[in-house]
Amino acid sequence: MSLLPGVLAGETRAIARLLTRAEAGAAEAREALDAAYAAAGRAHVVGITGVPGSGKSTLVAKLVADIRRTGRRVAVVAVDPSSPYSGGAILGDRIRMAEVAGDPGVFVRSMATRGALGGLAHGTLEAVDVLDAAGFEVVLIETVGVGQDEVDVARAAHTTVVVSAPGLGDDIQAIKAGILEIADVHVVSKCDRPESDRAIADLRNMLALDLATSRRPLWRVPVLPVASLRDEGIGALREAIDRHREALDAEGGLLARRREIARRRLVKAGEDILRERFSREGEERIAALLQDLVERRASPRAAARALLDELAEGGTR
Amino acid sequence: MSLLPGVLAGETRAIARLLTRAEAGAAEAREALDAAYAAAGRAHVVGITGVPGSGKSTLVAKLVADIRRTGRRVAVVAVDPSSPYSGGAILGDRIRMAEVAGDPGVFVRSMATRGALGGLAHGTLEAVDVLDAAGFEVVLIETVGVGQDEVDVARAAHTTVVVSAPGLGDDIQAIKAGILEIADVHVVSKCDRPESDRAIADLRNMLALDLATSRRPLWRVPVLPVASLRDEGIGALREAIDRHREALDAEGGLLARRREIARRRLVKAGEDILRERFSREGEERIAALLQDLVERRASPRAAARALLDELAEGGTR
Repeated sequence: MSLLPGVLAGETRAIARLLTRAEAGAAEAREALDAAYAAAGRAHVVGITGVPGSGKSTLVAKLVADIRRTGRRVAVVAVDPSSPYSGGAILGDRIRMAEVAGDPGVFVRSMATRGALGGLAHGTLEAVDVLDAAGFEVVLIETVGVGQDEVDVARAAHTTVVVSAPGLGDDIQAIKAGILEIADVHVVSKCDRPESDRAIADLRNMLALDLATSRRPLWRVPVLPVASLRDEGIGALREAIDRHREALDAEGGLLARRREIARRRLVKAGEDILRERFSREGEERIAALLQDLVERRASPRAAARALLDELAEGGTR
Repeated sequence: MSLLPGVLAGETRAIARLLTRAEAGAAEAREALDAAYAAAGRAHVVGITGVPGSGKSTLVAKLVADIRRTGRRVAVVAVDPSSPYSGGAILGDRIRMAEVAGDPGVFVRSMATRGALGGLAHGTLEAVDVLDAAGFEVVLIETVGVGQDEVDVARAAHTTVVVSAPGLGDDIQAIKAGILEIADVHVVSKCDRPESDRAIADLRNMLALDLATSRRPLWRVPVLPVASLRDEGIGALREAIDRHREALDAEGGLLARRREIARRRLVKAGEDILRERFSREGEERIAALLQDLVERRASPRAAARALLDELAEGGTR
């Protein structure tokens, strides 16, 4: 019994059930996910990332409410840092999303990070397909801006928003520096704080330098001050996100962006298939290979190559 | 001309050169890395992870100096958050390591996170092999405790230390919760702050619950207060790390740990090989597949599977 018709009809319960089965790795979800990919492609996918403490979760909640006021349906896929053992996502969505609770035009899903044998990135982007296919006009991907997979996910969007906040510690500032370049739109949150003027000026200077070297000739990356708790700047952020999508459309940049996203997804999907094949291989064979590694008779790379070749000979799927 | 003899002799310049070539993906580094893996296996590999702002970098610098006072040679591989475009690591090592600057018994290396087409985890663990083969008795892997790859790397160690700090924001606390379970040793840094007693008590309560369900019957995970800037608690941390290694040896746990590390490395090496094969595939074939994805005639998973099978047929290596 396929879950897909309910998903395509935008039924909340069908969507939630497909996402749960997919996350559990259920075989019957596989076909539905491929069909969801085929049906998707209309949503504006927006990645929102920022360092811990940047206030991006509060901002996302306010942005959702604002997008709703324009009449569009909006979904959020939030990648939560979670235990590699329990696989449980951290709660909190329901609380901060209180403003839009019960609104069938809003759907929020937290993804757990799945540990070494499951792919965070691939699974998150498949969830985006499902919500896109279900007719949500805007799908927000919220990730913490630390970690290779997490940043990759935020970049697999049509529009990437990077949230900064003034007055964070040195460690955080160092991490922040690593994600500034991926922004189509910059937000400086907590702009009611006195240090925020400096943060805004720093970002604008950085962008002026970029512009001087003409790396982004067509779209001028804006730096937007926001105070989520006072609802200041949220409307301007929503407008900037919409304008970026229009600019992509107008300049023919959307196709290039879609190709870039496809390339990322191809790699991430390949990694997932690989992990599955490795874990499906006979335990005896794996045990023997691990023993070779432990006794240093083979390097991890040589062992992985041997296993890949055996798996390829062993058949398809 | 192989770099390996110099590496095995512990020559700083040869080590640095091999690591640089390996990070650049140079073909001649490949063989040396496999040989380094074969020669490694004696070092005590210690993963040190903590959320941003936990003060783990300062702690690592102090710990290095302390381990040196026991006469052992010690190396650090630090995974720095860095730009996905520039690939440049953030500076700072040389400054905070001033205490041990010029000491040939200390080696510090920052790894850049390498973006979508390079594996952070695999590369970092190969750097550990090189330092192990070069005769460093202790190799510390320092990573930020956010991000799937980053946490995986910290777990690919004989002893994993998780650094917490009192009084961080809610976002950070949520992330922290995700890494507590991987600790063999807990550190609460900045213990000169008044809120640290609470942080220590919370961790001890959590561990008492774990113990009640007897998940870790043999090794009792300690919770150690440290004030790095005052040099308080550093010696006790070093002793706990050494005791954990002794406990692993005594209980026969080391072999299980080595197998677990080998399993992680097998998967990570496989991912790296896959990325290389994908990027080596002819551009025309990839362009056609990407076009299929963009037009949604195939799902990322179906396309990745097809590509994997073609590559396997196309030959080995």
